[in-house]
Amino acid sequence: MFTRIDHVGIACHDLEEKIAFYTSTFGLTVAARETQPGQGVHEAMLHVADAPAGSSYVQLLQPIHDDTAVGRFLARHGEGIHHVGYGVDDVEAALGILAASGVRLIDDRPRHGSMGASIAFLHPKAVGGVLTELVQAP
Amino acid sequence: MFTRIDHVGIACHDLEEKIAFYTSTFGLTVAARETQPGQGVHEAMLHVADAPAGSSYVQLLQPIHDDTAVGRFLARHGEGIHHVGYGVDDVEAALGILAASGVRLIDDRPRHGSMGASIAFLHPKAVGGVLTELVQAP
Repeated sequence: MFTRIDHVGIACHDLEEKIAFYTSTFGLTVAARETQPGQGVHEAMLHVADAPAGSSYVQLLQPIHDDTAVGRFLARHGEGIHHVGYGVDDVEAALGILAASGVRLIDDRPRHGSMGASIAFLHPKAVGGVLTELVQAP
Repeated sequence: MFTRIDHVGIACHDLEEKIAFYTSTFGLTVAARETQPGQGVHEAMLHVADAPAGSSYVQLLQPIHDDTAVGRFLARHGEGIHHVGYGVDDVEAALGILAASGVRLIDDRPRHGSMGASIAFLHPKAVGGVLTELVQAP
């Protein structure tokens, strides 16, 4: 089902500071910067590598305000890894297979994600505490 | 510096249960199973994808006993994402560059990791709460 590790989503308080750190320390490059009001985040996609199935990124997430999913994550856990996103060829088909096998979903249909992707989240309680995202590149 | 996302390390209470879940639900395959006494874990590497720079994995980690790094993580946070590992061409060279730029290291020299890799961890306080591993494939 998974074609790659698309990204690791990292929650932070200060997006600019973390972009500066990852680019200067590790040499990553900024592929995109967006605000996703639906997910309540300002974000940056930092390019790690290319592969036949698609690229891999570090996704830095700063909440728009405290009362968002990432804002509540930061209040509970502090900065750190928030979720992992796996590439899939067809997110709608993958959701159908997972729903049929009883996996609890957050999104029962795809929605818009970073850089034009079609995405859906699985519930962390269904995946051993791991907030898991499916990503179909545009 | 990074050539790929090598793996996402996931802490769990029951390695067998999680292997069964990831293989049956997502179709991942077990690439290796090892016990790493130095890191205090029983682990499985589940293959996600291949790429020119090397493969990507989900790494499932069960602590050998409670008084280990992963055991303490589970006691504090419960099951979930424990760390991220990035591929590098030369872990010793990467450590030299990072130390010179003042990044706090856990390992100031490489040690043995999964599947014959040479690895080193950076301190999460230096990387915005993210326990970060460098992985040089054998």
